Amino acid sequence: MIHSFLMIGQSNMAGRGFLNQVPPIYDEKIKMLRNGRWQMMTEPVNDDRSTSGISLAASFASSWRLFLNQKDDIALIPCADGGTSLDDWSVEGPLFQNAVLQAKAAQKISVLSGILWHQGESDSNGKKHLTYKEKLAIIIKTLREELNAPDLPVIIGGLGDFLQDGIYCQYFNEHHEVNAALIQFAKDHHHCYFVSAKGLTANPDKIHFNAVSQRKFGIRYFKAFQQKTDILEALPDEDQIIETIHQKPLTKNEQYELLQYQWAMGTIAADEFQTQLAKLT
Amino acid sequence: MIHSFLMIGQSNMAGRGFLNQVPPIYDEKIKMLRNGRWQMMTEPVNDDRSTSGISLAASFASSWRLFLNQKDDIALIPCADGGTSLDDWSVEGPLFQNAVLQAKAAQKISVLSGILWHQGESDSNGKKHLTYKEKLAIIIKTLREELNAPDLPVIIGGLGDFLQDGIYCQYFNEHHEVNAALIQFAKDHHHCYFVSAKGLTANPDKIHFNAVSQRKFGIRYFKAFQQKTDILEALPDEDQIIETIHQKPLTKNEQYELLQYQWAMGTIAADEFQTQLAKLT
Repeated sequence: MIHSFLMIGQSNMAGRGFLNQVPPIYDEKIKMLRNGRWQMMTEPVNDDRSTSGISLAASFASSWRLFLNQKDDIALIPCADGGTSLDDWSVEGPLFQNAVLQAKAAQKISVLSGILWHQGESDSNGKKHLTYKEKLAIIIKTLREELNAPDLPVIIGGLGDFLQDGIYCQYFNEHHEVNAALIQFAKDHHHCYFVSAKGLTANPDKIHFNAVSQRKFGIRYFKAFQQKTDILEALPDEDQIIETIHQKPLTKNEQYELLQYQWAMGTIAADEFQTQLAKLT
Repeated sequence: MIHSFLMIGQSNMAGRGFLNQVPPIYDEKIKMLRNGRWQMMTEPVNDDRSTSGISLAASFASSWRLFLNQKDDIALIPCADGGTSLDDWSVEGPLFQNAVLQAKAAQKISVLSGILWHQGESDSNGKKHLTYKEKLAIIIKTLREELNAPDLPVIIGGLGDFLQDGIYCQYFNEHHEVNAALIQFAKDHHHCYFVSAKGLTANPDKIHFNAVSQRKFGIRYFKAFQQKTDILEALPDEDQIIETIHQKPLTKNEQYELLQYQWAMGTIAADEFQTQLAKLT
């Protein structure tokens, strides 16, 4: 059985953590949707832009595997898109329609088990926070209807405090108000849970969560999903869980995938590849 | 106006050329589909696997801009998927259905102008070539019907001779027969044109066209599209056209995109970013 999760929102859901700042996560039981089929997850999962990198989805999935279910597969449906406002996600628009199509394709080959939402930076000025909850309510309601999943859990992450520190901070001067709207939205709607970004840090651009923070955020998203509750503070054991995730020994299949990758990328020669391959089989 | 092209097939359509072996192509009038919307093209265009790299699509699009149309935009719809057989592309399967959905999404915001097909490595053994033409005919016929585009041109590339040289050559021992089937298919079907891979070379894996060869292949694909004819030999001016494509001066918008990328990736600091930005505006 495969349990799938839809990733929607803007760049911090797509993920902009630098790939070289954390060890990769390889787990043959974590999949991602590519062209209507599952592939073993590799990061970036959500390739919306050339800047795409580490997102919260990988450590969310790893936590799910570690703490909830060792038997089944978990799968990610990447549909987040950088720089998009809540209006860009209106139910008549291409982003929403693409997300529905991708999630429906996933439903043919998995049980859709939740929605991971992170959005709001693009609505953090010009009083857009005043209508945020109403607009998001229509999006979530319509999504659940279209997917025939009225009780689908929705995990909603908060915005980073670092937004006030960067050279583009004037565009984010109402991010506290958007955060308050996100918290209230989760309170007001069934099976919606808020996850705080407290203490998480950014890339030099002061817009995007860095790779380590994305790993932490994913663990918090998982705890909200597992416990069906808001997560309003940093978890005490985040660092330890990240360590456990990164130190998982590779299975033979995972070693095989890694070897294939190295060979395909030309970083090991054919004879070395064959030698290593022989050791695996 | 935007003219869009659907990329389907297996890994050599998705592209596995190493990104560091050719200069990048930036052209604000070349787009790619992401989440139902156009984005300015960056490579890899077709992100089916972590090994995805340079494909033929970028130089196809650049040639289209250079030789056919300087006014309009050209756009790529990436749906190719590595390792897939012709049976994987059957019209009931997820790959075909995904390609139809993506192409239909593109048709809402562009004029679908052609199909770029490269596939056959996964059918190069076990006498699969005997039924290749019949299977491909159903795929192309159904695709044209579903997209309501009965005369949509289809450009079909040949397989590389290097397939016989690698450590996995036993899987490709009938690649000449598949090539013959591809040539005959193009002869037998209206608005279908074959493009030879003669002289093109491979990555060390001897499976995938290298980056420079993908650039050349894209130019040949374009010539077939422009001249509505098979391209059975290398073109005499391929190297010169590649040079012209790579040396196109960047527009202000393209320089801005590049600057944003460098800043987002942390390769230039905020003050340097702002200095450069000021020079652009």
